[in-house]
Amino acid sequence: MKVKYNLINKDRNTEARYGKLETNYGTYETPMFMPVGTKATVKLLTPDELYEVHAGIILANTYHLWLRPGGELINKAGGLHKFMNYKGPILTDSGGFQVFSLAKPKDITEEGVKFKSHLDGSNLLLTPEESIRVQNLLDSDIAMSFDECPPYPVTHEYMEKSIERTLRWAKRGKDVFNNPNQSLFGIVQGGEFEDLRKKSALETVKIGFDGYAIGGTSVGEDKDTMYRMIEYSTKYLPTDKVRYLMGVGEPLDIIEGVIRGVDLFDCVLSTRIARHGNAFTRNGKINLRNLKYREDFSPIEDTCDCYCCRNFTKAYIRHLITSDELLGGRLLSIHNTRFLIRLVEELREAIKENRVLEYREAFIRQYQSK
Amino acid sequence: MKVKYNLINKDRNTEARYGKLETNYGTYETPMFMPVGTKATVKLLTPDELYEVHAGIILANTYHLWLRPGGELINKAGGLHKFMNYKGPILTDSGGFQVFSLAKPKDITEEGVKFKSHLDGSNLLLTPEESIRVQNLLDSDIAMSFDECPPYPVTHEYMEKSIERTLRWAKRGKDVFNNPNQSLFGIVQGGEFEDLRKKSALETVKIGFDGYAIGGTSVGEDKDTMYRMIEYSTKYLPTDKVRYLMGVGEPLDIIEGVIRGVDLFDCVLSTRIARHGNAFTRNGKINLRNLKYREDFSPIEDTCDCYCCRNFTKAYIRHLITSDELLGGRLLSIHNTRFLIRLVEELREAIKENRVLEYREAFIRQYQSK
Repeated sequence: MKVKYNLINKDRNTEARYGKLETNYGTYETPMFMPVGTKATVKLLTPDELYEVHAGIILANTYHLWLRPGGELINKAGGLHKFMNYKGPILTDSGGFQVFSLAKPKDITEEGVKFKSHLDGSNLLLTPEESIRVQNLLDSDIAMSFDECPPYPVTHEYMEKSIERTLRWAKRGKDVFNNPNQSLFGIVQGGEFEDLRKKSALETVKIGFDGYAIGGTSVGEDKDTMYRMIEYSTKYLPTDKVRYLMGVGEPLDIIEGVIRGVDLFDCVLSTRIARHGNAFTRNGKINLRNLKYREDFSPIEDTCDCYCCRNFTKAYIRHLITSDELLGGRLLSIHNTRFLIRLVEELREAIKENRVLEYREAFIRQYQSK
Repeated sequence: MKVKYNLINKDRNTEARYGKLETNYGTYETPMFMPVGTKATVKLLTPDELYEVHAGIILANTYHLWLRPGGELINKAGGLHKFMNYKGPILTDSGGFQVFSLAKPKDITEEGVKFKSHLDGSNLLLTPEESIRVQNLLDSDIAMSFDECPPYPVTHEYMEKSIERTLRWAKRGKDVFNNPNQSLFGIVQGGEFEDLRKKSALETVKIGFDGYAIGGTSVGEDKDTMYRMIEYSTKYLPTDKVRYLMGVGEPLDIIEGVIRGVDLFDCVLSTRIARHGNAFTRNGKINLRNLKYREDFSPIEDTCDCYCCRNFTKAYIRHLITSDELLGGRLLSIHNTRFLIRLVEELREAIKENRVLEYREAFIRQYQSK
């Protein structure tokens, strides 16, 4: 089935939305944080651990899976869900972001992007058609249109040409899309230019997709610019379709995104910082390598319900991290992912009760209190 | 409490014993395979995963924990069980094996072993007293005597001096041992010399311990020599005490050890080979990197009840391993550990039914059939 977004409550004072998203794997509440499983695995975690932190949709990266093990193999396995044994919805990106960030040098033409594989240096061409073909094979629940992710900053002139090409790519992708169980999302680009964000949003909506993503907001700008880019995008998107802010997952950015009407977020941060010994807490990010946790026999957060906090102390996790024991990164990945999911759970309640701004204020006060 | 071994059945045709071992954490059946948690973690696995593979006693390494985070810290945490949250019995080794294998150069004197830390090169001295003091602090259920682990081969003359010193060290360790909740095991050494194994066993028993270990059998000898060393040791050990073959965990070696009257085994192999992509199967060891598993959508073993085999295919695990995704090593660690535990479970049944030799024959036929 195509995903169906139902708007249930809108916060009275902001654009924040509480909604329900119907998917092939049941109905999920939004705003939602989606853990990233780049190579068909959320690093170090099993599907059961994802269910336990109340994950809904998870991400997988088409670029990585296209290169290895290949869309055909995963299709033979019965699709991505069967391959990785995840019994929940999966969103695949288009591969565009990775081609622009990982694969260098690259040559962007109307046809697509020519680049060298980051694995073996072979010459490859990723086109809108190939991206959709691979995503159709992967059989994710949500596929993304192939877009250009320009660096920041670029000129208005470059960005205008870029969004026009991205619109043509989106159209070409939609034309070859042929998986009836899958939804296809369009992507709004346009950098920090309101007129281009508007044009990109309206034209993408004109092509018509099952949901809309906002790209290019997390490529190194200051936060105010980023939040403006989000505003410039969501305000031109239809209220009856789900909205996804790509690659954003700092706690404060999730809150600011929700306030601007975003429903879905993804980010590698929760698991990446975990592997380096960092944990999200209500009082800010902490690094478990810090000597002050050596004899701290309390959990990372007393109020957290995750497996890590229910069972292990900071002193033990510090020991694991400083001893290069991978269980440390695994436990912190569980905690951090659950942290962001608890955050969106709380935001849902705040939206229903029209107190999103108060929630933000209280969260920021505590988060920056350290 | 001190562990108490109850011999329940002896195989009619071999020295194999089925027994029950009473511990601080309940009664466990033997023969038993004990997973190794070197630095207070069985690499990549949680305590819950250990319960799920039916682990009983697990090991931790005094040498590593002594260096980092230190016995005092773990004692402050409430002991090793609380520190790592394992609610089952824990055996700590003496640190001797690691001092002899990891820490070089070393200087062995009557007092103990002087060596350089493998972490920071600092000069350290490990003595029988210090080993026991640290193990008392760790508060494991079973502590091991500090012994010399001579290389192989050494002369009869060297080995005789070595076992005599190890006996003096065992006595010194016992004299300072002061944890009433902990058991203390002696260690039989003597290399491949029957007279020295006999002397070491009889004199160690004369000192009197709660259980007896057999050391120095896995330092690079051929298998026949190794099995002889085991025989030379178990035949001089009392039947009412549990016997532990240190560091042995190849499937065939476990079977041969059981046949020679051994009750407990430990080995890093099940988790170490896992992290390199290898799995134990009834048809021999396999490497999941092998191209032939690329499209193999069946579990590692159809007949295995582990989490890995219940949920994932060889093709997926191959993808994880070849993509350097740590979930691969984690899943294989579960499978391999469960494999060895299932092996000892089957051996227990075989002993009860006096068919250990038939079991060995059938196992070897299949294991070497590949």
